[in-house]
This record gives sequence, C-alpha cells and structure tokens, in this order.
Amino acid sequence: MSLLFKNLRIHQIFGANTDVGKTVLTSALVRASAAKGASVYYLKPVSTGPLDVADDEHVKRFAGHYKDKVDSTCLFRFDEPVSPHLAARLAKEQTGREVAVPSDETFANAVAHHIRQCATRVTRPSHMYVETAGGVHSPTLSGTTQLDSYRPLFLPTVLIGDSKLGGISSTISSYESLLLRGYIIDTIMLFRDEYYRNWEYLSPYFAERGVHVVALDPPPERHADRAQDIALTDKYYEKIVPSTQEGGIFDVVRHLDDCHARRLAELASMPGRTLDTIWWPFVQHGLVKSEADVNVLDSASGDFFSVYNGHHPSQPTASLSLLEPQFDGSASWWTQAVGHAHPALALAAARAAGRYGHVMFPQGTHLPALTLAERLVRDGPGKGWAARAFFSDDGSTGMEVALKMALRAFSVKHGLDAPQRKNLGILGLKGSYHGDTIGAMDACEEGVYTCEWHDAKGYWFDPPTVAIRKGKAVVSLPPAIGTLSGTADSLVDTRSLAHTYNMEERLKTPLAETYRSYIEQTLRKLQENGSPAIAALVLEPLVMGAGGMIFVDPLFQRVLIDVVRGSYDSPATRPASQWVGLPVIFDEVFVGLYRLGLQSTGPLLGVHPDISVNAKILTGGLVPLAVTMASDSIFQAFYSDKKVDALLHGHSYTAYPVGCEVANATLDVLEKLTGSEEWQVVQHKWNVPESKEARDTAVWSFWDPDFVNAISHLDTVEEVMAFGTVLSIKVKDTSGGYQSHSAQKMLESIKSGPVEDKLSSAPGGAPFGIHYRTLGDVAYFMLSLNTSAHTVRSVEGRIWAAMKNVSA
Amino acid sequence: MSLLFKNLRIHQIFGANTDVGKTVLTSALVRASAAKGASVYYLKPVSTGPLDVADDEHVKRFAGHYKDKVDSTCLFRFDEPVSPHLAARLAKEQTGREVAVPSDETFANAVAHHIRQCATRVTRPSHMYVETAGGVHSPTLSGTTQLDSYRPLFLPTVLIGDSKLGGISSTISSYESLLLRGYIIDTIMLFRDEYYRNWEYLSPYFAERGVHVVALDPPPERHADRAQDIALTDKYYEKIVPSTQEGGIFDVVRHLDDCHARRLAELASMPGRTLDTIWWPFVQHGLVKSEADVNVLDSASGDFFSVYNGHHPSQPTASLSLLEPQFDGSASWWTQAVGHAHPALALAAARAAGRYGHVMFPQGTHLPALTLAERLVRDGPGKGWAARAFFSDDGSTGMEVALKMALRAFSVKHGLDAPQRKNLGILGLKGSYHGDTIGAMDACEEGVYTCEWHDAKGYWFDPPTVAIRKGKAVVSLPPAIGTLSGTADSLVDTRSLAHTYNMEERLKTPLAETYRSYIEQTLRKLQENGSPAIAALVLEPLVMGAGGMIFVDPLFQRVLIDVVRGSYDSPATRPASQWVGLPVIFDEVFVGLYRLGLQSTGPLLGVHPDISVNAKILTGGLVPLAVTMASDSIFQAFYSDKKVDALLHGHSYTAYPVGCEVANATLDVLEKLTGSEEWQVVQHKWNVPESKEARDTAVWSFWDPDFVNAISHLDTVEEVMAFGTVLSIKVKDTSGGYQSHSAQKMLESIKSGPVEDKLSSAPGGAPFGIHYRTLGDVAYFMLSLNTSAHTVRSVEGRIWAAMKNVSA
Repeated sequence: MSLLFKNLRIHQIFGANTDVGKTVLTSALVRASAAKGASVYYLKPVSTGPLDVADDEHVKRFAGHYKDKVDSTCLFRFDEPVSPHLAARLAKEQTGREVAVPSDETFANAVAHHIRQCATRVTRPSHMYVETAGGVHSPTLSGTTQLDSYRPLFLPTVLIGDSKLGGISSTISSYESLLLRGYIIDTIMLFRDEYYRNWEYLSPYFAERGVHVVALDPPPERHADRAQDIALTDKYYEKIVPSTQEGGIFDVVRHLDDCHARRLAELASMPGRTLDTIWWPFVQHGLVKSEADVNVLDSASGDFFSVYNGHHPSQPTASLSLLEPQFDGSASWWTQAVGHAHPALALAAARAAGRYGHVMFPQGTHLPALTLAERLVRDGPGKGWAARAFFSDDGSTGMEVALKMALRAFSVKHGLDAPQRKNLGILGLKGSYHGDTIGAMDACEEGVYTCEWHDAKGYWFDPPTVAIRKGKAVVSLPPAIGTLSGTADSLVDTRSLAHTYNMEERLKTPLAETYRSYIEQTLRKLQENGSPAIAALVLEPLVMGAGGMIFVDPLFQRVLIDVVRGSYDSPATRPASQWVGLPVIFDEVFVGLYRLGLQSTGPLLGVHPDISVNAKILTGGLVPLAVTMASDSIFQAFYSDKKVDALLHGHSYTAYPVGCEVANATLDVLEKLTGSEEWQVVQHKWNVPESKEARDTAVWSFWDPDFVNAISHLDTVEEVMAFGTVLSIKVKDTSGGYQSHSAQKMLESIKSGPVEDKLSSAPGGAPFGIHYRTLGDVAYFMLSLNTSAHTVRSVEGRIWAAMKNVSA
Repeated sequence: MSLLFKNLRIHQIFGANTDVGKTVLTSALVRASAAKGASVYYLKPVSTGPLDVADDEHVKRFAGHYKDKVDSTCLFRFDEPVSPHLAARLAKEQTGREVAVPSDETFANAVAHHIRQCATRVTRPSHMYVETAGGVHSPTLSGTTQLDSYRPLFLPTVLIGDSKLGGISSTISSYESLLLRGYIIDTIMLFRDEYYRNWEYLSPYFAERGVHVVALDPPPERHADRAQDIALTDKYYEKIVPSTQEGGIFDVVRHLDDCHARRLAELASMPGRTLDTIWWPFVQHGLVKSEADVNVLDSASGDFFSVYNGHHPSQPTASLSLLEPQFDGSASWWTQAVGHAHPALALAAARAAGRYGHVMFPQGTHLPALTLAERLVRDGPGKGWAARAFFSDDGSTGMEVALKMALRAFSVKHGLDAPQRKNLGILGLKGSYHGDTIGAMDACEEGVYTCEWHDAKGYWFDPPTVAIRKGKAVVSLPPAIGTLSGTADSLVDTRSLAHTYNMEERLKTPLAETYRSYIEQTLRKLQENGSPAIAALVLEPLVMGAGGMIFVDPLFQRVLIDVVRGSYDSPATRPASQWVGLPVIFDEVFVGLYRLGLQSTGPLLGVHPDISVNAKILTGGLVPLAVTMASDSIFQAFYSDKKVDALLHGHSYTAYPVGCEVANATLDVLEKLTGSEEWQVVQHKWNVPESKEARDTAVWSFWDPDFVNAISHLDTVEEVMAFGTVLSIKVKDTSGGYQSHSAQKMLESIKSGPVEDKLSSAPGGAPFGIHYRTLGDVAYFMLSLNTSAHTVRSVEGRIWAAMKNVSA
C-alpha cells in the first residue's frame, strides 16, 4: 500500500507520452536533489531498450559531481525498445528461453520491497524518484497499464508534459487519467519549446486546477559522435542544474519538498482537526479518548485502506512507512463488493457526470436509470415478480418508500377510511433493522437505536436462529416455540447447513408444522387485540444485519410468509404480480446482490416478495443509491386520475445518472464474477452442485468450511455462521447486548499488523492490520466478491491466531 | 445542443494525438461512405497549416470516383501548422491585421448552423464526418480544448488511435478524457503498425469496455515528388477502400450505420420502456396519457437538457434534429447551480472515486469529508455559530438528523423522562416541507404529501408573506394577524423589497410588535394546552419551497426566533454556541448556498440557528449529499461515556468521498462566482451597495427588476416574487391548491421552442423549449448561479410573451 516516509520523500515520474524527456528531466531532478545535499534513490522498475543508453546508467552518469550520492537501480530489463509487455514477449520469442513475467502483485511487491529497503538505509532527508516506462497508460510487463499497476503503491507523482505539437492534449489527457485513479499530482514539468509554446498554455490551465507547471530548456540534439554527445549532454545538465542552485529545476525540488512536508503535516493534523469538527455517525465521542483512536484513511485499493499510523503510540521508527495497509473487515459498512476504487466504477461515474450531471427524473427518463430498472426488474432480484422500480437515495429511504407502498396497497384493498389508516402496523421479527430514518425505525421495536419520536408500529416475532456450534448446524428455538415443540434444550440439530437451507425438505419436517401453528396462534391473538391492524409483513430475509448478524431460520420466514398469504403460497393459484393476505416486503439492502452469494433470497426461500429494497452493493461501494421494486398490484394501488393518489415521495437526486451508471457497471462486474472460476472453486469446497438452480439457492461461503468448523469448537465461542461473504462469530459473554465490548476485546490484537518479514497479501506486501466492527458480543467479517483466496486465508489465519490465543 | 437526424448520420472524429492519421482515415471513411452510395459531408471546422495540403482539399481529392458525392467544407482556416489557438494568435502577430477569433458560443453555433444546413439538403441516408484539430484536448481558436468546445453539440465520436510507440497510452488517455465529458465513442480506428502492434493490445482492452477497434494499413511514406506522391496516395486509398466494398473500412462504415440505427431505435423505444418499468416520484401515472408525455433526456449541458422529440405528435420533419435543447427551468428540482455536467465536478467525482471509492466513516476521517466540514463550519453557512458537521444522504435524512439532535438536546436539558420524551412536538409554519421521509414529514402538518403513518407533531403558524403586486412590495397578513394589526385588507405596503428585508429597520416598525404579541399569545395558549410539549423551532428561512414558493415575511421569522429564545436574541448576552429557549433549526436545503444569492439566510435575518441543514446545491447538482451542522451545545447533549447516548444514526455511504469531493469542487466554483463581474452587474441593477456586508444580507435577483415589475402588473397575475435565482409567479385562480393546473396551463406555450431563424442562446443556437414545474397556482423558474444574461433575457422574453398573450 501507499508508502510514505518522514525522511525519504518519494515521487513517481509519469510521462504524458513516450519520448517526452522523462529520463532527462528525472536526471535533472536527481542531480538537483543531490546538489541540495540529499541522498538520492533513482528507481526504474522496468527498462526497455539497448543497455548502453539504459535510463539508470544515464541518470548515474549525468549526476556529475554528485554521483556518489545517487543510488540508481533497475529491477526488470529488456533489450527491445518497445512497450514493456511487448518487450517481454519479444524476449521470449527471440531467445526461445522462458522469460519470467511478474504478475501485478509480484511486480508491486518487488517495487515496494526495494523502496522499503532504501528507506531503512536513510538517515537524513533523502529523495527518491521512481520512473515509469512510456506514457501513463503504457502496459507494464503483465499487460496492465502503468497507472493501474502502480496504483496499489499510491506514490505522489510528477507528470512530465509533452512539449511537441499535440502535447497540450496528451498532457491534459494524461493528467485526467491519473486523476481517475486518484493520484496526487504534485507538479508538471515539460521542455520549453519556443515554437509550440505548450507551457504557455498549460501553466494557467493547470494553475486554475491547483497544479504547478515548470518549463525547462530542452536538451541538445543527439550528436552522432558518442563522446561529443556525452560532453554536450553533460554541459546541458550543468546548465539546467547550475551550481548556483537557482532556477527552474531547484524550484521544482523545493516545491516537491514542500509538498512532502505539507503532506506529512496534513496527515498529522487530521486526527485533531477531525475531533474538532466532525460529528460521527454511531460513535460516542465521549469514548474516543485520543487522536490515536481516529482512523486516518489516506486512500484505498482493493480490500485495503491505506491508513496513517504517525499518531499511534506505537508509531513506527523513521525507517518504516507512515502509511500502512488495513484490511477493510466490515466491507465499509457492508457496501464494498468489488474492491475500493475499482477503475470501471470510477469511469462509469465520470461518464455519467460528463454526459448528464443530474437531470430531473419525474416524468423523464435517461439511459442509466432505465437500463438499471430493466436489469433489476427483469434479470435481477425482481425477476419473476416485480413490475416497477422506484429510485431513492439509501436503504433507509428505500424502506420508507416500501412501507408507504405496502400501507397504501393494504388501505386501498380494504377500503380503509382515514382513522383506520392511522392505525396500521406491520409484522416483523425481533432484531429487525431497516435504516435510521424515523419511519423505517417505526417498523422496528423500541431499542437503543430509536429516538424520541419513535413509535413502534407493529408486532415482532422472536425468531428461531441458525448457527454452527461445535461443528454442528443447529437451530435455536426461542422459548415460546421451544415449549411448543417439546425440545428440551431449545436446540434442533438440522444435520447440515445444506439441509437447513433446503426449503423443500424442511417444509416436510415436524418443525414446519410447529412454526405454522405458533404463527397462526399468535396472529389470531393479535387480531383479537385489534390494534394496530397488521398491514404488511416486513423481513430481512435470512440475516438480520444491524440487529446483530442474526441468521434467522429460513424455514420460519418461509412459513411466516405462507401463513400471512393465507395459504401455502403457490404461484399456481395466483399470479406473482398479485399480492394476497398481506403485502410482503423483503429488505434486501444488506443480504441482496450476492452479499450471501445469492442474487436474491427469494429462490432459496421459494417465495417472492411483493416489494423489495436493494442498496449498498447495488452501487459497488462507491456512491449511495436505493431501488424499491414492486409488483404490479402494488403499483395499481396508486394508479388513478388524481394527482393526490400518486406516490408523493421523491428526493432531489432521484435516479441521478451517476448513481445509476455506477450501479450498471457494478452489475456488469458481478455478472462476470458469478461465473468465474474462483467462485466455482469456492462453491465446490462447500459441495454446491453445479446446476444454475443450485447456485441460486445453495448455502456456501468464501470462508473456508474447515476454518469455520474449527472456530466453532473454540471454548470462547458460542456459535459461528458463514454465508457468502459474511463470517459471524458470537463470543460467550453473559452481559451481551449492544453495549457489550467482549467481541471487540477478544480480537483487539488483529487491529495492528504483525511484525514479520514475509510479504503479506496486502498491496505492496506490507504487514497489515484488520479493521473490523462488532455488534455487542458478535464480531463479524465481510469480504468483497472478488477478495483473493490469498487474502481470505491470511485473514482467517489472523482471526484464528487471535482467538486461539484468548481461548488458550 | 445535440444534433441527430434520421437520414444524416453524423460522427465527429477526434485524434488520440496530432499526426495519428485523422485526415487519412477520415478520407477513407468519406470515400467508403460515398462508395456505399451515401451523400457525404465532410466538415473541418478549423484547419491550420499550408493551403496546398489542407484537409478539406485532401478529402475531396482522394474521394476518387465519388468526388461528386462529397461536400467538403472548412469554416476557419489558418496558415501556421500549430495548434488553432496559437495559429490565430500568430496570424494576428504576423499580418498585423485583426483576426476575428470566435467565442466558444459563436464557434459552436457556426458548426451547428452548417450541420443544420446540410441536414436540410439531405433526401436519403447520408453521412457526415466532422474532423477536429489535433488531439482531444488541443485548444480551439478561443483556447478552450477540443472536447470541451464541441461538447455542447454532443455528436457521437470516432477516436483515431495512435499506432506509434506510446500510442497505447495516448489512445487510452484520450478515450478517458472523452468519457469524462460523456461522449459516445462508437469506434476506435488506428493504423496497423507491425512493429509496435498497438492494435493487438487495444482491441481486447476496448472490447472489454464495449468499444469496437479496427486497424487499417498505414499510408505510404510521403514522396518528395508531388505528382508521384499524389499517385501513391491515390493507390493507397484504392487499396484500403476497395471496389469490392469488403474489408476494414467498410466494416467501420457498417458499424457506424448500425450505431446510428441503434441510437435512433433506442431513443424511440425509451418512452414506452419507461412507461413499462419506471415508477416515478411525485407523478400520477394515470395522468400520463401517452409516450409523448415522457421527457427523454439524452444528455445535458449548461442549463439545457438535450431531449428527444421523435415521439411528439408535432414531430419535426426529417430535416430537423430529433434532439433539441430544453431549458431546465426548475434547475432539476432545485439542484443545479453551475450548469449540468460541469467538467470540474466530473473530475472531482473521478478523483475521489479513484483514490478512495467509499470508505468507512465512523471514527474515521478522510480529506474530502474533513475539508468540506471545515469549510462549511468555519467559512460557510456555519460561520459564527456551528461547531460540527454531520453527514447524511439527502435533505430529508439531513432534516431527520436535525430533528433527532433538537429533540435530544431539549430532552436532556429539561431532564425529561421516557414518557415525556414521547410527547414532544415542534413549532413551524403552515406550508413547511422538510423532505419525504416519515420523520421529516411529521414535522409538518397533515396534507396531500403525507402517508398513512403520518403523525403531525407540533404547531404551525399561518405566516405573513411577501410579494410584489402591481409593482409594489407588500406583506400579506393572515386573518389572525390582520385583525390584530387593524389592517383593513390584510395588505401592508412595505415601501420596497430592500426595506422588507432590512431587519434592523423593520424591527422598529409597529408590525414587529404586532407579530411579537401574536406569537407570545399563541405560545401561551399552546403551553396551557400542554400537548405536545414544544421542543424545537423548525423553519425554512425566507422561502418555503415545496409548500408553494411561499416567501415568508422575514420579520415574522425573526420575531418568532427572538420570542422562542425567550428574549430578543443578542449574541452579547449568550455565546452563539449555546442554545436558549428552544433549539432553532434552519432547513436551508433549498434556500442555502446562494439559491437566493446569499450563502446563508442567518446574516439577513440577523440571527443564527442552532442546527442547520444544507443539501441540493451543496454538490452542484451532481450527486446527493446532506450536511447537518450543529452548535457545540447541541453536540454536548449526546456526549457521555455511554455508547447508547450517542447519535445512533448513520447511512452506509455517510460522508462518501465522491460526494464530499464534488461538494468541495462546487464550493470552489461558487467562491469564484460570488466575486465575479457578472454578479456585480446584476447586484448593481438591484441597487445593492458594494460592501461585503450588503452582499451577505441584501435582496437581489438574477431576474431583471423591470421584467419582474412588468409581470406583476398583468391582470392574470396575483403576485410575483424574485429573489436570487428564483422567480415565482402566482396566477389568479379561485380553485388553487396542489391539484390546481392553472399555472401549468397558462405557460403551456413555452414548453416547445418557437419556430424562428434567429440563433437562440441554447448551445448550438437551436430554438429551445422550456421545462418548468408548477406548484398548483404557482409557476416558478430557477436559474443556475452562472446562467448567462443572454439566456436569462431569452427566458424572460418567452415567459412574458406567453403570459401577455393569455392576459390580452
């Protein structure tokens, strides 16, 4: 991950094109840095072209008097003067020998390793220049382009602009490509060409964008005589790096020093400034004891944050990086699914921003929204039942829309009058959570999350739950059902997870009958009571997330749906578009779109909802967006010739093109992943049959079954569950509840990275800490849908070590 | 705006760099199109370099047998072979004569005019190629870069890739720059260079991104002998455009034909597909009679949408464009402030997406969020009173957060127990609207917008309002106050708008005393009544937007605040960070951040709130984001050592970096605008004194005072108001209310563009329709903060003509 050292100021040099003077200007920088008294490290990770003009040789040779202060290194070298990916291929073809082409991971690790080695040798302010090959998007050895392959290291950059005809364009475009990957661009340097005068144009252009531009004299034409050429070149460097230490190149060196100093100061100031100005969600500021408790996120890549550690009491020695990788163990509140800062998603955001900005949606349409709606309704979670998509901004607003739809549909169908409409409640499960807005909260019981205006509107069943205990899949029954079922300890052994989630089989078990009579009995009592009148069933299918990662027995949810629908739901007896009994809402904000490895929970449960909500993964963890889908019969409840009958709900940015386009790009990425070999390997481990139907309904996880099993046997562990990307560990703790810190304490040690020499699976191979969230006595970990097996195994190992240690 | 004709398929040719073969490959396209039987139009808007090799000459000459079918045109020509902006300057310097350099608007209009002229001559399927100069970002004559200067015309593009060393990079970067402006890229063409083989790399790279790549043989080296050169070149074109009509170039022509056909089919299908799948906010689908009622937004630029008209009953003849500009008269639900698709905002979104994606915010920090919080709290609307910023997703969630803050602060201060906390309400004004989530709705009265679960919690005053009637600034008093004041007709002449909004002066008037006693009396009665207990004052300062663009008498709001604070609020007697009486919430979602020309309404009112909410303009009309600011004493109500005391509210994407970075970029743009000459000119018209204090507190508008005055005298108009970007016209209508369509009907005629030859102020100069929204009997129009005076005058003219016509 990003490397930042107090005493070693590093810049990466990108070119606006090949042959723009990258090596010449870098040589000048190296020489000027050395002249200023710094030790200078020059690194050319990949060099192509004849050895006698190799860049690392050139830099060293023309450092002049300062040669001894310069360490010049090349990691991968190829003869052919072409793009690295082609050079590697030609080397193979021409020599017939096997040429080891490093993978992106190996390559980034090698560069990072070299940088870390240099950093350990530094004793006073030193400079490093890492020169890339070709233009910003020239392919590296693996074929990935420069700026993507170096992105995991996230080094501040210098862009060498193009001084030739067309160079204004290539310089600006290169700058924009760097920005699209989030790079920090500290300066742009280019040759002063008196005919095309590009610098004259570019200086004010970039000044307006806060980027410093410096133009320097171009080198002499190459002389045919080699000795002469060297002499002329030497003279050139003497001129642009004068002994007076004045002029352009020294301005750049000073500016880069300033940038480095500002960056250090800025990072150091951020914790304090944050404690002064920010009001965090879900955080008791009174418990934040010091600046060290503030997680300073400098950037992110894949599943890792790059975080500042300079304010930690255990701040590393000067030779270690002030930025270190941190595994995003909560998938940033369950939003991440394809890795942070995915280029395809950034491009999608840019494309929609550039084409539309935001445009008015009521009675309007645009491609990003229309395409997304069609994909979700026809081929997505709405397949087979949904007719329409309604857009809003987040899971909470999406659920408010769902509730408004259900309440109205019920009221219209039963011809309720105004006072009757004010007495409607919903049916749910204890532990439900549907978002933080007050209406969504009113669909849940009173609890620590609720505010003064909360008014619990409904009835909530205490549900049976699923977990693995000492290697066995069990269902824990709540007391009321336990009594009814005659089970002594309220625990039902369900043979296997696969069986637990096989609805067809389990509907035949006696437990199904027990659930049914319990539910029917309860509903009868509620009806006798009369208030509130129950108008909808609202469920988080399979898992109640914020309520504590409660894996509800799917059989209970299925039977509940069947009962409220007045019969055992069968598509044969009614069209899926027609709601019966009560409208059923699936809150799939957390569980939907493959968080559990399933596109939607309906196929597993064997029933469709009438209304459902998707958010979080929907936009791949980039921007907020929610979609509420509804069947046609729900929609019809609002359809009339009176404006006031319409669903009068909408947010200013409803269906904003950036959100919709990012969602479309996310669905593209998800489609590719679901069919990937990586997924098949994992599904195979969990014995998922190879049919499409099995993949739509089976329980499996990216977490290793043996690891899950082993954890479940630990003495300190009450129970554990793994499903899709989610791992949930409930520790033994008598206090329990939202205020418990037991899970938090047990895993404390995984917060910081271990001190070990081995390369980690984090970008750049540095040791990494793990950022995780707990819900009282439950610790949970969440992966993306493309987290590498290497990373998953590392995280498992770290969790195992921490818990084993506490258990021992 | 975007030009699209059924029979004239147009493509714009961009180059990945200069000298990549743009003209050669375009010549090949022209010849191939002609060979396929199409009439072909070649347009080189700007050509630089010696006349004898001018691109338009080249294209014509090498069209071979098909010359007669080719119309080749150049609009601006310069001799010097340099970038157009420099060529224009050199022409001036070298000849000493004045060279007319067209402005961006003139330039776009000239190109659009030429295209429209060609379209009128077309009788059968024809092709047009518009070749740009240099690379995608090479400056045009005005200095604006190619892709920004052509963006208003939004033509589908062909990118000519670079086949040389470094060309992979410049091709990909150019593609990304085009995407950042939203361009549709139909194909990439480049020369087949057998050494660098760029096409081999680029074909799969772009296939993955859905873009078609074709490689074609390069032309022969230039021959020294001119005749020979021509002969060789002729042969080359014969080879790559063979008479067999097979091979690469014909594949491209067919592909471009397909793209054009698909685009037409897609646009034609969108209304129907939208009616099938989308559930619109705030729209009664039963009133949407046909596809013609669906506004199909193909793109947007500045203040204009580009909309499809092919499904309108009044569909234009084949020679007119199927896409036409439409003025975004509601600023897309009040979100737009700097024009649609502003490049600085798109870049900001891209930058944050590339650096962070979204990252976990609780107990974390990142630069975009921290910077934004500091700017808002210290130099923004929070200046002088706010201590902290809390992020959420939209105005409605921001208001729910504000309410939770206020209710808790009140409860804690007064040591309320649980049942007392359930009996809290707020004080507000009739006509308030704070967003669509149920909690925000509960802070408003019951009405058409409210749902089954609505429970109006509070008391709402009927407020006096401000308007211009027949040229006079008047305050209309509600009956209760009218009686108290002894005003016969409930209308108070307030001399001038400037005086109406001068709090210092008006606090001295008898009306202030009337307001005060009325408010005190009402509050006493409420207190005697006892339920609900009033816990906060919630106001939309100056204007209640969604409630009907109600301009509330600011004096009434000021006195109300003074009264609830228990004294006439004076910062001298208490620190601004300490709330007294009731917490005061300013809902500035609509009015804040210069919608009214004022950064915040506090300075005008002369009082600060304790909590405020900003959204809409905050992110420049690109993505959703809200910030709730609070004073320190509000924050302290949640501060303890118990987690459950914290503000347990947060959305998954809280403080997402893309939103925060776009907001920061928006604030940058706003800062520049507020000091601009354009603003000064407008403020001068409204007699705003030149001091900073005056600009922070004065009433003025981008609408012309004479126009506003004239409208107010129309017989059909009840009253009118203009403030900042907002123009509100209340028409005379006895039915009134949300269901009224009177305003909608009166302005019907401005929906479609007038048929006139004169160039309009829309991009490309085409006639434009006006998209506007009404709220019952109120029609309102909203500008951006940088709408050109030319456009404002046009819109005023159109409104005037429509209303005058009805009045006459």
